[in-house]
Amino acid sequence: MSEKIYVLNGPNLNMLGTREPDVYGEETLDDIATRMEARGKELGFDIEMRQSSHEGHLVDWLHEAQGDQAKAVILNAGALTHTSLALYDAIKSIRTPVIEVHLSNPAGREAYRHKSYIGMAAIGSISGFGIGSYELALDAVARL
Amino acid sequence: MSEKIYVLNGPNLNMLGTREPDVYGEETLDDIATRMEARGKELGFDIEMRQSSHEGHLVDWLHEAQGDQAKAVILNAGALTHTSLALYDAIKSIRTPVIEVHLSNPAGREAYRHKSYIGMAAIGSISGFGIGSYELALDAVARL
Amino acid sequence: MSEKIYVLNGPNLNMLGTREPDVYGEETLDDIATRMEARGKELGFDIEMRQSSHEGHLVDWLHEAQGDQAKAVILNAGALTHTSLALYDAIKSIRTPVIEVHLSNPAGREAYRHKSYIGMAAIGSISGFGIGSYELALDAVARL
Amino acid sequence: MSEKIYVLNGPNLNMLGTREPDVYGEETLDDIATRMEARGKELGFDIEMRQSSHEGHLVDWLHEAQGDQAKAVILNAGALTHTSLALYDAIKSIRTPVIEVHLSNPAGREAYRHKSYIGMAAIGSISGFGIGSYELALDAVARL
Amino acid sequence: MSEKIYVLNGPNLNMLGTREPDVYGEETLDDIATRMEARGKELGFDIEMRQSSHEGHLVDWLHEAQGDQAKAVILNAGALTHTSLALYDAIKSIRTPVIEVHLSNPAGREAYRHKSYIGMAAIGSISGFGIGSYELALDAVARL
Amino acid sequence: MSEKIYVLNGPNLNMLGTREPDVYGEETLDDIATRMEARGKELGFDIEMRQSSHEGHLVDWLHEAQGDQAKAVILNAGALTHTSLALYDAIKSIRTPVIEVHLSNPAGREAYRHKSYIGMAAIGSISGFGIGSYELALDAVARL
Amino acid sequence: MSEKIYVLNGPNLNMLGTREPDVYGEETLDDIATRMEARGKELGFDIEMRQSSHEGHLVDWLHEAQGDQAKAVILNAGALTHTSLALYDAIKSIRTPVIEVHLSNPAGREAYRHKSYIGMAAIGSISGFGIGSYELALDAVARL
Amino acid sequence: MSEKIYVLNGPNLNMLGTREPDVYGEETLDDIATRMEARGKELGFDIEMRQSSHEGHLVDWLHEAQGDQAKAVILNAGALTHTSLALYDAIKSIRTPVIEVHLSNPAGREAYRHKSYIGMAAIGSISGFGIGSYELALDAVARL
Amino acid sequence: MSEKIYVLNGPNLNMLGTREPDVYGEETLDDIATRMEARGKELGFDIEMRQSSHEGHLVDWLHEAQGDQAKAVILNAGALTHTSLALYDAIKSIRTPVIEVHLSNPAGREAYRHKSYIGMAAIGSISGFGIGSYELALDAVARL
Amino acid sequence: MSEKIYVLNGPNLNMLGTREPDVYGEETLDDIATRMEARGKELGFDIEMRQSSHEGHLVDWLHEAQGDQAKAVILNAGALTHTSLALYDAIKSIRTPVIEVHLSNPAGREAYRHKSYIGMAAIGSISGFGIGSYELALDAVARL
Amino acid sequence: MSEKIYVLNGPNLNMLGTREPDVYGEETLDDIATRMEARGKELGFDIEMRQSSHEGHLVDWLHEAQGDQAKAVILNAGALTHTSLALYDAIKSIRTPVIEVHLSNPAGREAYRHKSYIGMAAIGSISGFGIGSYELALDAVARL
Amino acid sequence: MSEKIYVLNGPNLNMLGTREPDVYGEETLDDIATRMEARGKELGFDIEMRQSSHEGHLVDWLHEAQGDQAKAVILNAGALTHTSLALYDAIKSIRTPVIEVHLSNPAGREAYRHKSYIGMAAIGSISGFGIGSYELALDAVARL
Repeated sequence: MSEKIYVLNGPNLNMLGTREPDVYGEETLDDIATRMEARGKELGFDIEMRQSSHEGHLVDWLHEAQGDQAKAVILNAGALTHTSLALYDAIKSIRTPVIEVHLSNPAGREAYRHKSYIGMAAIGSISGFGIGSYELALDAVARL
Repeated sequence: MSEKIYVLNGPNLNMLGTREPDVYGEETLDDIATRMEARGKELGFDIEMRQSSHEGHLVDWLHEAQGDQAKAVILNAGALTHTSLALYDAIKSIRTPVIEVHLSNPAGREAYRHKSYIGMAAIGSISGFGIGSYELALDAVARL
Repeated sequence: MSEKIYVLNGPNLNMLGTREPDVYGEETLDDIATRMEARGKELGFDIEMRQSSHEGHLVDWLHEAQGDQAKAVILNAGALTHTSLALYDAIKSIRTPVIEVHLSNPAGREAYRHKSYIGMAAIGSISGFGIGSYELALDAVARL
Repeated sequence: MSEKIYVLNGPNLNMLGTREPDVYGEETLDDIATRMEARGKELGFDIEMRQSSHEGHLVDWLHEAQGDQAKAVILNAGALTHTSLALYDAIKSIRTPVIEVHLSNPAGREAYRHKSYIGMAAIGSISGFGIGSYELALDAVARL
Repeated sequence: MSEKIYVLNGPNLNMLGTREPDVYGEETLDDIATRMEARGKELGFDIEMRQSSHEGHLVDWLHEAQGDQAKAVILNAGALTHTSLALYDAIKSIRTPVIEVHLSNPAGREAYRHKSYIGMAAIGSISGFGIGSYELALDAVARL
Repeated sequence: MSEKIYVLNGPNLNMLGTREPDVYGEETLDDIATRMEARGKELGFDIEMRQSSHEGHLVDWLHEAQGDQAKAVILNAGALTHTSLALYDAIKSIRTPVIEVHLSNPAGREAYRHKSYIGMAAIGSISGFGIGSYELALDAVARL
Repeated sequence: MSEKIYVLNGPNLNMLGTREPDVYGEETLDDIATRMEARGKELGFDIEMRQSSHEGHLVDWLHEAQGDQAKAVILNAGALTHTSLALYDAIKSIRTPVIEVHLSNPAGREAYRHKSYIGMAAIGSISGFGIGSYELALDAVARL
Repeated sequence: MSEKIYVLNGPNLNMLGTREPDVYGEETLDDIATRMEARGKELGFDIEMRQSSHEGHLVDWLHEAQGDQAKAVILNAGALTHTSLALYDAIKSIRTPVIEVHLSNPAGREAYRHKSYIGMAAIGSISGFGIGSYELALDAVARL
Repeated sequence: MSEKIYVLNGPNLNMLGTREPDVYGEETLDDIATRMEARGKELGFDIEMRQSSHEGHLVDWLHEAQGDQAKAVILNAGALTHTSLALYDAIKSIRTPVIEVHLSNPAGREAYRHKSYIGMAAIGSISGFGIGSYELALDAVARL
Repeated sequence: MSEKIYVLNGPNLNMLGTREPDVYGEETLDDIATRMEARGKELGFDIEMRQSSHEGHLVDWLHEAQGDQAKAVILNAGALTHTSLALYDAIKSIRTPVIEVHLSNPAGREAYRHKSYIGMAAIGSISGFGIGSYELALDAVARL
Repeated sequence: MSEKIYVLNGPNLNMLGTREPDVYGEETLDDIATRMEARGKELGFDIEMRQSSHEGHLVDWLHEAQGDQAKAVILNAGALTHTSLALYDAIKSIRTPVIEVHLSNPAGREAYRHKSYIGMAAIGSISGFGIGSYELALDAVARL
Repeated sequence: MSEKIYVLNGPNLNMLGTREPDVYGEETLDDIATRMEARGKELGFDIEMRQSSHEGHLVDWLHEAQGDQAKAVILNAGALTHTSLALYDAIKSIRTPVIEVHLSNPAGREAYRHKSYIGMAAIGSISGFGIGSYELALDAVARL
């Protein structure tokens, strides 16, 4: 049976493709899902792709990933990356490894995007490669 | 057909009338709705009035306003004004113009109410005139 | 008729028992509920125990506590303690007294857990005694 | 007899139309005067329009507005908005209500334009609507 | 033989009853002593109540509490709470558990009362319940 | 021939008596002038009393005091006390001793009134005694 | 019967005359006592002059001044001026008016001498006039 | 016809020669004028030399320089260099190039002289060469 | 002809395997080289692996990479990541894309490792996967 | 006659041997006294060893050291090292040279132990060598 | 014999002409050398032009300049300007005067380029005139 | 065979004797070498004395000291003490104990010399005794 990988997406990521395409690229969240499922199939992973603008859902899904015995969580928390101590605690509260991803490179953007509560708790972080960040994270999971 | 205006209200604004009336006045959110609908009718606007204490709902409604081809959003994000980078990103992720309103004048209150993530992304801001802030925002929309 | 006491719990508190047991102890949220109901019965209180990872639910429940004429709210807001101005405003927006509780002692942990928005609005605060913090809060309510 | 409204403008506002038109628009201070007088006439207000690059003049004119029994002052203090404690004190020293206006939205600009000494003392604030900010302020006065 | 509990009070607590009664209540330090002894008797504790405005005495008494094999120390360090690293070290230098108490809730007061060196070293903290804070601390000791 | 003492007053001090009388008292700047002249006569001083809301005038008058061989300058710079590096430089640029005075005690007011550029350059400072601050400054000059 | 004035001196003031005479002058604390008694006699005051390097003594003496029905306290807290919140609370805990004095002008010295906890609670402050600061403070008391 | 160069000087520069000669040298502002006119004649420039302690005048003169079609402005804003956002805006509001000059080197002085609002808007900056700073600025203009 | 990839390593990375193996793992820099060459061969890349404790060498090598028409630079600048503005400028000064890698996850370590000058200029960043960070970076290059 | 050396110890140093032995070692203050006397005898020094948890005593003893014509003071001020401006002033107020010692190395501990008021005034500082720090300080005195 | 002038250039200045030409211009470091030699010949100076990306070389060359009895050093330290305390110390350690130059105007760029360790130690500073900054510095040397 | 001790010196220490002799004394680095060798011979140590202005060399030499099985490193990193995280990491990357030395006492100098990256990683620190600091460090090594 293939292992489950949760791919969780935070606020505004449903707007991908429309929102500031020069920063975030033109592909949509559905495009990411399609490519992740394809790459997941190659690696023997079952992709559980979700998006919510609610911090509470992301927290609950992190708990659920552990209950569901997921092999790992790939998390792009959007703007909550920089403000949510609750997500930090949620990652710390589970044993499932979490990998932080970003489409763009927050370090190259505004100063208030330089601090990452997700990165403080995650095992690793990949950013700046567009959808590639997600795929590389999947490869990283395969190495765990 | 009249144009749609979203009027979105954040946490605790449902408590208007009961909560610290010396700061926020004695009128309720329903009173604001009534007056906004009246003024909207005069200006040929269809008012979509909502309130939620969930940041996630406000983010989703901002997206919805664009999908709904609203002419503008009038947003009083309450305390989230000062802490929500997700709302900042949500405003940036849509083309619909957003106007920030406040009943009281945050600049005249505690220091932690001086920073506004909403103001950083909105086209304009009106505060300090009680319900008048909302009505003036509607007039401002009529000028767009 | 016995008086109602709301006992509200924030993000990740549903993970109690599994999460970092050296910090938070091995008892679960259900254990807290059981002990609170027992102690509540002795004091003539009806315990309304809830948990959510959504800031919005906590805000709404604070309002509800007042509508429900609760005698007091005992609030462990978890990580939101340190980041949620909306909860600060919610406590200020009701007349029901709120008591802040924590299982561990945040002052003895990381610096970003030293600031408490809940404490700034609550009538009192008890932390560091594990489930005892909750029970002592109930005793404190009995003295109001 | 019509009521007097002081409309006071700070440093560099005399350069409107020439100065960074993408930020401040192409209309001049005279255009603002013309439109304010027109709108003032409709509302039964007598507009007293002034500009100075001297903080001292703005302070004196605020005092004069009170001596002159003006109904209100509409104040765009330009860069002094962000640095002048003397203007803060001047507004506090009179009983005449003061409304802060800005053509652009300072919250959307450089960080050193986010703090407003004027906003800390004014009854309300309107910004981001170009000349519309002034006209809306006049409407706000009409509601006082 | 009953166990000893040290109840140590810092600067200005001898002024209780006279000093800002709206903040600190009208009861005196003697009233606290009386009530603590009563409650102590019920719990089988021998109360050693002391007050000094000298940081040095508080440090020495913390050492003495350990030498005296006290079961616990209840410490209200007054203003030294927020400035004394020496008290922090003193608490760390003994094995006797220390509980921080305050009559009022420092988190609800001036910003310079938000940091607590005592809380950083104590096992737990209770504040905001007037003399009740002391009594609840005694109950907390009974649970240790 | 009697020695000259410059008594210079900054922005808003012309509003004394009207402005926030609970902070600044009910006497006017003319009352101060009258009492200073009376006390000056006793000490053999010729009082040169001036007020301006222009930083530039205060700077120029400090230079003039030296040109005029004044024995000393008594300076209440109002809000400029806390923001004017130009006044700091002006005091440093003359040999005439300058004494800082305030009617109220800025240290007991808002944090942004705690820094004093005037005090950093003046030989001494007197504050908190209402008009008495000015008279005590005159006595201090008599001791130089 | 003459009224009592407490003149309290903090750490290192017993070293006056020896310590950095270019900053603090060559007169000793005894010289100050002598001149204060002389000036006190003229004004009908009985001078109670004390010095201690213990914050605790200064706190206790402030309390004692009130018990002793002193008309006022003149306080030079030395270095404790800038670090002692306990002295701030002590001044707030009594009704006896307290006047802050300094021989030199702290605002003209190192940055860490610019904040004054004493000034935040005192009714007024006099600094920079050597022993004259004490004498002027006595004159200020005579005006109360 | 020779081109016009505005040479504008801020607060206290009229005191040159008297003021702290070890920092600013012994030459007066008139000496600077004489040398600038001489050097200007060589380069075919007409020097318009002015001084004011009023920020407002400096702002107005910057506008005037543009109206007067000056080739460049050489600006020594004195202490206003470090505090005047209005001058920053004034420089940004004109197309005439502005060169910042200082007699001494502010970077080698007190920390509060390290930030330069003038430098943030000027095309270039020259400091530390006494009157030479002015002359080099004139040479720099000749290269534009 | 295979494309060249520069893999540059900063201070102390030559100590890998010996240095704090719980943080950095037990493999040496030679192990990384071996694995990178193997993976490079698969992807058709020629790996140029270097290490230096000199910021200057890293700067020069970044320039050299461009001169050498390298396809990309993979850069682990070690501690210089957090302090070297010169490396930031070096990355900005070339057109060759640079990818930041780290063995451990700096966001999960001390606060002074949270700021990354490399990340501010790089196109993307991968950290936390041990040698895997390097290999994933190579895969990321293959996607460019 | 042998010269006198004061060895002064601040708060909690009397707890040596019991307190956190992994940080401070297992030897007691008496052990230090014994070793210092032994080493002092070799160097011809008479050791005056004292300990107090009162800042006031340390200040007084520093004065006394000078009165007693001590050759030097070796001072381990414990936690007061990081908070006591009064001790800084006391060291500055005497001519006797003061050497700062610490058993552990404060720079390697918590950030709030990095600032040293003692070091700012002392002639030299030795830390991190356990009792050796004291002995090396004695050797350093022998070199003066 | 002509006097020697060292012209030292820091990291990345060898990339001039290629690197961000809109910020730094299109001329190369060789162009600067050519123009400096030409201008040097006119002034009777022998130009010693060097570049290194190593802070250590710049430090050593500053020492060498003194050993070589150079008349002055013209130093463009590139990014090290803002981070290198070692260069600050090096300039302080020699008697040869050092002049800071920059092609662009750092005050008009990112905030982390506003602090200059070079400027804190140099006798003067010239920036913003492209290669002209270097030539003007040579003229400034001629005036020394 | 005698044990090896590395004595490493950072930027500008080669200038000793010439550079600011009132701060650093008149002896040269060669004098230090001579005295260290003499004292080393007494203690049976072989002294390896080096100096470089390159951070990279200091990092490499720290590694080399371990490879060379040195008993200890005595390190005076000069200005790099306060800025080099790479040296901090280098010390952490070796098992050889490192002792920080300074000729003068950095705590008594400018604020930017108060933070020590070397001290954060070293086992101990000695400063303020001129060359004596080095000799005392050698004695400290003998005690290890």
